[in-house]
Amino acid sequence: MDQQHLDVAIAAAQAAAVELMARRDDRVVHEKAPKDLVTDADLAAQKAIRSILLERFPDYAFVGEEEGETEPPESVRRGDADAPPCWVVDPLDGTVNYVHRLQNFAVSIGLYAAGKMRLGVVYDPVYEEMFTAIDGQGATVNGRPMKVSGCRDLGESLFSCSFPAGIKSDAPEVKRFIQVLEKCRSLRRLGSCALNMCYVADGRLDGYWATSVQPWDAAAGTVIAREAGAALTQYDGSPLDDWSPRFCLTATEELQQEMVALLS
Amino acid sequence: MDQQHLDVAIAAAQAAAVELMARRDDRVVHEKAPKDLVTDADLAAQKAIRSILLERFPDYAFVGEEEGETEPPESVRRGDADAPPCWVVDPLDGTVNYVHRLQNFAVSIGLYAAGKMRLGVVYDPVYEEMFTAIDGQGATVNGRPMKVSGCRDLGESLFSCSFPAGIKSDAPEVKRFIQVLEKCRSLRRLGSCALNMCYVADGRLDGYWATSVQPWDAAAGTVIAREAGAALTQYDGSPLDDWSPRFCLTATEELQQEMVALLS
Repeated sequence: MDQQHLDVAIAAAQAAAVELMARRDDRVVHEKAPKDLVTDADLAAQKAIRSILLERFPDYAFVGEEEGETEPPESVRRGDADAPPCWVVDPLDGTVNYVHRLQNFAVSIGLYAAGKMRLGVVYDPVYEEMFTAIDGQGATVNGRPMKVSGCRDLGESLFSCSFPAGIKSDAPEVKRFIQVLEKCRSLRRLGSCALNMCYVADGRLDGYWATSVQPWDAAAGTVIAREAGAALTQYDGSPLDDWSPRFCLTATEELQQEMVALLS
Repeated sequence: MDQQHLDVAIAAAQAAAVELMARRDDRVVHEKAPKDLVTDADLAAQKAIRSILLERFPDYAFVGEEEGETEPPESVRRGDADAPPCWVVDPLDGTVNYVHRLQNFAVSIGLYAAGKMRLGVVYDPVYEEMFTAIDGQGATVNGRPMKVSGCRDLGESLFSCSFPAGIKSDAPEVKRFIQVLEKCRSLRRLGSCALNMCYVADGRLDGYWATSVQPWDAAAGTVIAREAGAALTQYDGSPLDDWSPRFCLTATEELQQEMVALLS
């Protein structure tokens, strides 16, 4: 992956953000499921992204949250030598915040190639923060290099987590939340997986975990967090599964070990 | 309360924000208690506020979170006819976020007079949002009038809540969190009482509750939320106690009734 791919992904994220912000105060909300929202902004933003990415890279695969494109081609998933690179896109991460006009939502664009997420772009159009990373080349926000916090002590840590929509009180996610709540300094729920991952990359959070997000929620954040020095595995400590991310992300290996013991 | 009081409070909030932002990346952290942080920024910001407010209104009382000034004069608390107006100040609401360089912290300045909070100013120096209200004159953000969301259905609501530092898993706050989590669309923990209250005022959240905050955390937000049309009581449904706020704040009376039944 190179600067050319990054430039196109940034342009696509910016185009999507224009669609989101134009519709933000004039939103048409359709309900997918009782507590799972989708908006026409979501659709318009995805269309803008797809159009820009596929015009420049017509042979690449495309995975997004909209119907009919939620699964990567089998050759991509298997990591076949002749599999095409695959864009993994969430046009609007943090839909509930967006619909309520609360900040903390973002456009997220990842690029998977040769068995790994290789490039990530996350753009927050409210704060106007552009988080980017290319595999092996570090991570930046608005051009400034990012680095994780270095926190090693759970008792001094600020964490964030995500729950699924429509969660019940006896869900394992609730148990995990309470276990971490007791041990960390404080625990946030900000409502955007992509931004939580970027905030760990920039040292604003010491960690984040999510056991119910989709590949497109985490794709870009995966590269950005790793390139900033974060530890990232499935929440049971096994290697991250990009296509079924149930993960724990921390600033350091020491925190990761403590968290995996708590969560698994 | 008049525009003159508001102008002075705004100037004080801006002066405090300068102190906060100047120290944000060069912070000296002292630990008050294991999970309860204070910074030298906190102290510098409070000094800046006190100096501006008391220079212009030398006879007014002053309550803030720093040692020796946490209690209002008895005449103020009783609402005596000859009691002085009393500034109620949190120079840095959302200390944990601030220390970690996460957004969502604010300066909060309230003015209590004749038995009631009468004026509120909350300033978020990262987003540069200035929330203000005077009793009976409406609430604004950066000059734009604010209004609550009008949400009446808990199942469609976006709520936020606060926990005390060092919370244990069997605390009543955790039980309340889980009860609301099941019933609302989603539940945030953003880390600033003052901003949560302003976000309810602006319709970005449909409600917020807190059972462990201090008078200065809630003082300004009380006026701002009420003037935007919010319902605000103690969490058991009794009238708000400004000096011991354990409250539930909602966009509508209907939500308030549902929440009081869940929380109390």
